[in-house]
Amino acid sequence: MAGLVARFAPADLFAQAPGAAQRFGKEKLLVRSLRPPDFETPVALLDSFITPIEHFYVRSHLPAPASLDAASWALKIGGEVDAPVSLSIDEIRKLPAVTITMTLECAGNGRSFFDPAVAGIQWEKGAVGTARFTGARMADVLKRAGAKATGKNVEMHAADRPLGTMPAFVRQVPMAKAMHPDTLVAYDMNGQPISAVHGFPLRAIVPGWEGAYSVKWLTALNVLDKDSDSFWVATGYRYPTRRVAPGAAVDAKDMAPLVGLAVKSLITRPAAGASLPAGQVTVAGFAWAGENDISKVDVSIDSGATWQPARLVGEQAKFAWRRFEHAFAATKPESYLILSRATDAKGNVQPAVAQWNPSGYLWNQYDSVRIEVK
Amino acid sequence: MAGLVARFAPADLFAQAPGAAQRFGKEKLLVRSLRPPDFETPVALLDSFITPIEHFYVRSHLPAPASLDAASWALKIGGEVDAPVSLSIDEIRKLPAVTITMTLECAGNGRSFFDPAVAGIQWEKGAVGTARFTGARMADVLKRAGAKATGKNVEMHAADRPLGTMPAFVRQVPMAKAMHPDTLVAYDMNGQPISAVHGFPLRAIVPGWEGAYSVKWLTALNVLDKDSDSFWVATGYRYPTRRVAPGAAVDAKDMAPLVGLAVKSLITRPAAGASLPAGQVTVAGFAWAGENDISKVDVSIDSGATWQPARLVGEQAKFAWRRFEHAFAATKPESYLILSRATDAKGNVQPAVAQWNPSGYLWNQYDSVRIEVK
Repeated sequence: MAGLVARFAPADLFAQAPGAAQRFGKEKLLVRSLRPPDFETPVALLDSFITPIEHFYVRSHLPAPASLDAASWALKIGGEVDAPVSLSIDEIRKLPAVTITMTLECAGNGRSFFDPAVAGIQWEKGAVGTARFTGARMADVLKRAGAKATGKNVEMHAADRPLGTMPAFVRQVPMAKAMHPDTLVAYDMNGQPISAVHGFPLRAIVPGWEGAYSVKWLTALNVLDKDSDSFWVATGYRYPTRRVAPGAAVDAKDMAPLVGLAVKSLITRPAAGASLPAGQVTVAGFAWAGENDISKVDVSIDSGATWQPARLVGEQAKFAWRRFEHAFAATKPESYLILSRATDAKGNVQPAVAQWNPSGYLWNQYDSVRIEVK
Repeated sequence: MAGLVARFAPADLFAQAPGAAQRFGKEKLLVRSLRPPDFETPVALLDSFITPIEHFYVRSHLPAPASLDAASWALKIGGEVDAPVSLSIDEIRKLPAVTITMTLECAGNGRSFFDPAVAGIQWEKGAVGTARFTGARMADVLKRAGAKATGKNVEMHAADRPLGTMPAFVRQVPMAKAMHPDTLVAYDMNGQPISAVHGFPLRAIVPGWEGAYSVKWLTALNVLDKDSDSFWVATGYRYPTRRVAPGAAVDAKDMAPLVGLAVKSLITRPAAGASLPAGQVTVAGFAWAGENDISKVDVSIDSGATWQPARLVGEQAKFAWRRFEHAFAATKPESYLILSRATDAKGNVQPAVAQWNPSGYLWNQYDSVRIEVK
């Protein structure tokens, strides 16, 4: 890794030109924000089990670090530990390597569909993707410093720098999840070093939880015997502990940190608005439920009046989405509203209407595409 | 019946004052149009199996007749018959009397929920109600004139008068439906003479079909060996023969007359927006499917993720809605989006999304109410 350096030019960090996504190698993505870069994947580009890097969505809370030098990078482990330590990338690469296939989804994916509207990046359906992340176990890294039994949370710090009064992007993960053998300090994504915009040279990988736990440009793990008081733990990424009416104000005492992901499906084929000849139509897509397995996906070709079980096919990995397919005969010219509805192994079912919440998180109602058969 | 006279003052026919609904004895209804009178029933007033007259919705295509005199009323039967005849109200009342309990629903009920929006009276959920209609069988009336075997349709004429270039409200019913023993020429509604605004002194009752077949102020039955060329048969009340995309233009050749009604349910209790104490909540309402029986109603208390079968209770009548009830324990303060979904005896199921069509007919997606448990 020594010598591998990624740099952002200042013009990219603050780009407002339409070419910004191109400069990140993301020219097929939808620009939801230019500074910081927030790019969404068009659903048609999500039709493969592994999402190619160039199609993988980008979520940044702050401008990315201006300079990323793997050779001089240090990951500091401190706080409630026996002996603070600073590890180089080479040292981390020498720890046992683990590869996790993980569906990463922004908590705000689908936010634009909530009514009443909610502030934030107005994601539609494509702030999600699946990649293989390789790295050391976060547990192995923490053990290098000797995390104490008093440790309750691991605070994660990063190299992106807030501007003005913006809070630093500091998050925490509970100790049990940090020590889980599938939680990583990752350096590779889809078999190559994680690219600059995805967190080079180190990224936390907290599988099955919403994407913002997987902190990019990771610089420090700080073991705490309490809750972090950082903005993004104390205030951000919290969800009501009870279902509230759309538009309702929610007391801080009735909010808790987001953990896991909602059960959800996404139809990746045919494309919404597709015009197809009469004949067999194959509906396909992916379903995921964070830490839970998908047990079934139902598809409706009649606007949700009746449902048929889809076939679950292809690779099955613990924290990755599952491919579903359902073929039907479209024998005459007609408009079809096709719906999908996933169920996970714990019996959670994707609802007809997503639960509104003040931050617009975890939108997960039935997916739908309308197609025309000619 | 002799001597029973109902009159509208011209001021009522063209009323634009907020008191117009009061003058029709409909002060609790929502005014959707003042001229002609189109009044909708608030859902909370639909919580009884039989809808009281004062709560029954009103749909008029044209200003109501200015004068209605039962004593001089004549129902003419002509066209493809052995001998045209004119019957008085007294003669019709002397024929065998039949009482039908019927759910009457405007084809455009729910039109306001279609997206894109559709022109017409912007009904929400309350252009529906159930009444007991008493009258002579239309078959017995037609037999008085000797309807011929060449008869294909029965054209129904009425006393309401179009203004300017408006087409007369003439409709037709196929001969088989006209001769069905449950199709009536009715004079009583809920045990009393049909009131002026509901079609005094005679109204066709075509059970299980959309309300506009049940022509008010009936003056003539004209047996035809072809299709009527009246506007409301040739152009109005037609529905696409195939599912079309929302907003699509539909060729006249791809349209057919509406028959029957869509399978549908309506939650009448608790009211949308109700705030209830924690404890047992009873969800109740009605489901109907025109000529078909209701076989089940499912209720969801979790936004459509899971469904439980409701109990079908109360009176069951062939063309009437069926009461459903489902109780659940709401143990903590929470917002509930409650959904209902009906299935009829032919296996038709209420869809998650209603089928858009150019006239906005037969809106029937899952019903929903949101309540707050405190």
